[in-house]
Amino acid sequence: MYVYGKNVVNELLKNKKNIKKAFIYNDFSDSKIVDNLKYNKVDIKFMNRLELDRLVDGNHQGIVVEIENYEYCDIDDLLKKENPLLVILDHLEDPHNFGAIIRTCEAAGVDGIIIPKNRSVDVNSTVMRTSVGALDNVKIAQVTNLKNTINYLKSKGFWIVGTDMDGTNYQKIDYNGKMAIVTGSEGFGMSRIVKEACDFIATIPMRGSINSLNASVATALVVYEAVNQRTNEL
Amino acid sequence: MYVYGKNVVNELLKNKKNIKKAFIYNDFSDSKIVDNLKYNKVDIKFMNRLELDRLVDGNHQGIVVEIENYEYCDIDDLLKKENPLLVILDHLEDPHNFGAIIRTCEAAGVDGIIIPKNRSVDVNSTVMRTSVGALDNVKIAQVTNLKNTINYLKSKGFWIVGTDMDGTNYQKIDYNGKMAIVTGSEGFGMSRIVKEACDFIATIPMRGSINSLNASVATALVVYEAVNQRTNEL
Repeated sequence: MYVYGKNVVNELLKNKKNIKKAFIYNDFSDSKIVDNLKYNKVDIKFMNRLELDRLVDGNHQGIVVEIENYEYCDIDDLLKKENPLLVILDHLEDPHNFGAIIRTCEAAGVDGIIIPKNRSVDVNSTVMRTSVGALDNVKIAQVTNLKNTINYLKSKGFWIVGTDMDGTNYQKIDYNGKMAIVTGSEGFGMSRIVKEACDFIATIPMRGSINSLNASVATALVVYEAVNQRTNEL
Repeated sequence: MYVYGKNVVNELLKNKKNIKKAFIYNDFSDSKIVDNLKYNKVDIKFMNRLELDRLVDGNHQGIVVEIENYEYCDIDDLLKKENPLLVILDHLEDPHNFGAIIRTCEAAGVDGIIIPKNRSVDVNSTVMRTSVGALDNVKIAQVTNLKNTINYLKSKGFWIVGTDMDGTNYQKIDYNGKMAIVTGSEGFGMSRIVKEACDFIATIPMRGSINSLNASVATALVVYEAVNQRTNEL
């Protein structure tokens, strides 16, 4: 997988990540990064602008590196704590949203994220860039069938809370215990089959005329409500 | 100002916005949009791919339209209600974050947004696209000097709540009355001068190892806490 940008490369170096190869502009000005790559014995290839621009889409700032593909974990790795809090993303599409959700989950102390294998954003270069280091501390499992996964979680004692427009105020739901919060896709929300599998539907009050929040914002509001309840227990 | 993409153009047409001109691929397939533009007597120029690609950066999906520049309001327009809730963005940079914050403010019923004129994202095409229609229902004022604006708001009886790492838990602050919530830029947070002008600093608890949330996520958590307090009064 290719990732790019000075911040991302610095983050990788800081966290001692294995960088397989680096591709850098001939006239790249940040000698500190180059020295650091050399110190870590990374194979560096200097290129002209045209060659590097062809390697990736997006604002690479003169530096692209090749790293190992992201390693997903197994669903059972997410169930080891006593009362895990999980987030399930039902066919999210936008990598910026996914990156922001990973950051929120890391900051809030969520125990894992579950995404489906098909028709969903996966952990790509943009996600890595947007999540700014949070990826290292959040476990993500990729599953073939969300409905089967939800049923499996239920069999393990999980409550499933979906987020949608026609449910209970999100602050009136009890988020204690084994809990999975489901967010739908940006355009279509949760699929019918996933929504039907939910035990509760959490709704964020809307006072304006548009009827949806940004997916990462909606997820953050419900996740933080859950975490605040779970940590402020009397 | 040029904006682009099918969703954006459909939204403009739905809201009877004045479209000055449309630029469309010769082989554009969505005849419904074209018919709708013709019905609204919009001047249409068909172009080949190269010409259209040169007009804007980004995924325009074969359609670009020219509209009037966004009209900012005057700061005093935001102060007409009895107890306004305002959001101040201290040199935000990312248009996706700005768009998501506009959506959140619209959904939460915030009375207005204040941004500085220089070194800040303004209402551009990406913001328009990301905020998906919410722009029509949120007032935005652009000011020359944030500190002077904050002092002006204070002279009108406003409390100023900044968001940063070293303050009071965001749920332990009283958000009733005339209130302005300040969010800093993605990279650097609030400027020192703005932070010193705040009456309170609201902090979102972080349980992970990274120390910041996405700017639109952090803003949403504090805004919704404020709105929930203001509407759930006993």
